[in-house]
Amino acid sequence: MANKSIQNQKLGILGGGQLGRMLIQSALDLNIDINVLDPDENAPCKHISAEFTAGKLTDFDTVYKFGKSCDLLTIEIENVNTQALKKLQSEGKKVFPQPDVIELVQDKRTQKRFYKENNIPTADFVLTENKEDVRKYTDRLPAVHKLGREGYDGRGVQVIKDKEALDKAFDAPGVLEDLVNFKKEISVIVARNENGEVKAFPVVELVFHPEANLVEYLFAPAGISERVALEAERLAITVINTLGMVGLLAVEMFVTHDDQVLVNEIAPRPHNSGHQTIEANYTSQYEQHLRSIFNMPLGDTSAVLPSAMVNLLGEDGYSGTAKYEGLEEVLGQKGVHVHLYGKKLTKPFRKMGHVTIVDEDVAVLRQKVDFVKNTLKVIA
Amino acid sequence: MANKSIQNQKLGILGGGQLGRMLIQSALDLNIDINVLDPDENAPCKHISAEFTAGKLTDFDTVYKFGKSCDLLTIEIENVNTQALKKLQSEGKKVFPQPDVIELVQDKRTQKRFYKENNIPTADFVLTENKEDVRKYTDRLPAVHKLGREGYDGRGVQVIKDKEALDKAFDAPGVLEDLVNFKKEISVIVARNENGEVKAFPVVELVFHPEANLVEYLFAPAGISERVALEAERLAITVINTLGMVGLLAVEMFVTHDDQVLVNEIAPRPHNSGHQTIEANYTSQYEQHLRSIFNMPLGDTSAVLPSAMVNLLGEDGYSGTAKYEGLEEVLGQKGVHVHLYGKKLTKPFRKMGHVTIVDEDVAVLRQKVDFVKNTLKVIA
Repeated sequence: MANKSIQNQKLGILGGGQLGRMLIQSALDLNIDINVLDPDENAPCKHISAEFTAGKLTDFDTVYKFGKSCDLLTIEIENVNTQALKKLQSEGKKVFPQPDVIELVQDKRTQKRFYKENNIPTADFVLTENKEDVRKYTDRLPAVHKLGREGYDGRGVQVIKDKEALDKAFDAPGVLEDLVNFKKEISVIVARNENGEVKAFPVVELVFHPEANLVEYLFAPAGISERVALEAERLAITVINTLGMVGLLAVEMFVTHDDQVLVNEIAPRPHNSGHQTIEANYTSQYEQHLRSIFNMPLGDTSAVLPSAMVNLLGEDGYSGTAKYEGLEEVLGQKGVHVHLYGKKLTKPFRKMGHVTIVDEDVAVLRQKVDFVKNTLKVIA
Repeated sequence: MANKSIQNQKLGILGGGQLGRMLIQSALDLNIDINVLDPDENAPCKHISAEFTAGKLTDFDTVYKFGKSCDLLTIEIENVNTQALKKLQSEGKKVFPQPDVIELVQDKRTQKRFYKENNIPTADFVLTENKEDVRKYTDRLPAVHKLGREGYDGRGVQVIKDKEALDKAFDAPGVLEDLVNFKKEISVIVARNENGEVKAFPVVELVFHPEANLVEYLFAPAGISERVALEAERLAITVINTLGMVGLLAVEMFVTHDDQVLVNEIAPRPHNSGHQTIEANYTSQYEQHLRSIFNMPLGDTSAVLPSAMVNLLGEDGYSGTAKYEGLEEVLGQKGVHVHLYGKKLTKPFRKMGHVTIVDEDVAVLRQKVDFVKNTLKVIA
């Protein structure tokens, strides 16, 4: 019985950052005790985990030993030692998402091959082994070069405009992708439990920061047609079912000018594009992740109100002990929810928090996004 | 500047039960570090406070020493040593609610005198010193006899129906109150910050458990006329302004059959009658409490959706390690949010958690309250 599991199973998370922190905030409501492993002694989860272990997520022995003390394991970051997770799984521990799914996602090359093999629409690409290799494909430029492994939060991705820019190419295994002339970037978060129940959250529209290459803000629902929304949901569900994964999966997609939907990247965990569900939806992505990995019935994903989410990034030019300028002004606005991540130190573009805004009127929502962006600053 | 305060002040809470736990869950979003003092080594706040101290809340030295390590102090239970708080206050610590307000509320006799002196409508009463004293007032029966001090969660209150029942009277200082033939019990939660800004939450309707004498469930909004709702809000605002208190105040009231509103009792802290605000209102009572004591702008109190809240009480006849029967069935319902309090042991009528239900349709809300009451049980 699943509810028996919740009371008696010890959940371990690999990673103790903001995603783990919000997962714990949600887990508290279900009396789920969570142990956390993170390399940073001052990780955001430090004070709120049942047990906190400082250690490397990529080290076999560290992950294996941590996993032995838990009954069920999950992740809040993909860059973890999957060999240790596979051994734990073979010894009877539950690991969700499954280690083979994490491995597939860790490398953008296997991700892209997976889309191709399963007829999931994605931008055309070639695999490249090193910088020299990329020079063969001048006819494909302009293109996006992505590092196969260890890219994160906008690192490991760059546009190569023309032959002159080829020198920027990564000198390691990667993917050279067609530059998609998209009109919108969107995301669908979908969950699947062990019973095979699947539910998708409504499509959100992402706006990226021009310099930092990570989400600056988002709107839910996305400003797209019903047809495109249905296609995006269908694709997200296809991806999670094809992977056969248990847990939460974020599927980032492009909408082209002729309304094609292409899968860009996936992340098998709670995701930046689902933060707004805490306030704006009947079930939050964090609770949905817990429901899926504990094989509980999935929660209703519909929105209570339209919403926006603004990432609160460390202001460029400031490093050191974080100060939050304009917090009081922002808290004075109706429907504004501030989430700070408990990080003592700021640096340029570091994710320090986010702000969710709910409002029945989408025009008001847009005004409030501008107000928050212009008012709340993380300085040092 | 208030936002500077939040970053630099250490908040201490006297009491580490479920109210403190939900306050910490909210405080995490604002990077507020909270130290907790509670006599129970396994209190619900244990694992999520920045620092947890086990110690008696009624002991002068314990409270004083704890308070010295904090900049700002608040409570989640009234039964604390106010002498220590007064000394801390005189030494420059901020204590909200103020110790004199806590003292006034600790004794139902001073509470009742306060209403009378300030022309706040309340049930007629006489003060009684002991059991013998109560016998003088046979002409006032049936009446409610309340212990002056240390009543909590329904303890220390009883109805004396007639002369034959006089033997049940408390043999300690108390209040003998007219038995109000009310049609509804309601509550208004109101907040006030140091700037004097005051905001009230919408009126909720309380339904009490017939045996346990504590809230079994509630509905928001209350099923009362606009006029009665305005009068209830006006009274709550009058009480907090008259007290001059800073923080959150729950004002429980009776609505009589001729639509008079009478103040019954007050509690200067987050309250059982405000749990549903976490999901159902733009601002939760917990965030509002933090905003008020840190002198931040108060949040919008309006409801996003109609809601109900069901207290999850330990089932009569069961004591021991808690098990949650029917959790899965309840989680399968749309708009249902389960909050468990992290208590390992259950006993009859112990508050083990609560369930909030949101729905646009009030009739559906009532059906779901019945479903939750009949389905989710805390047994051992």
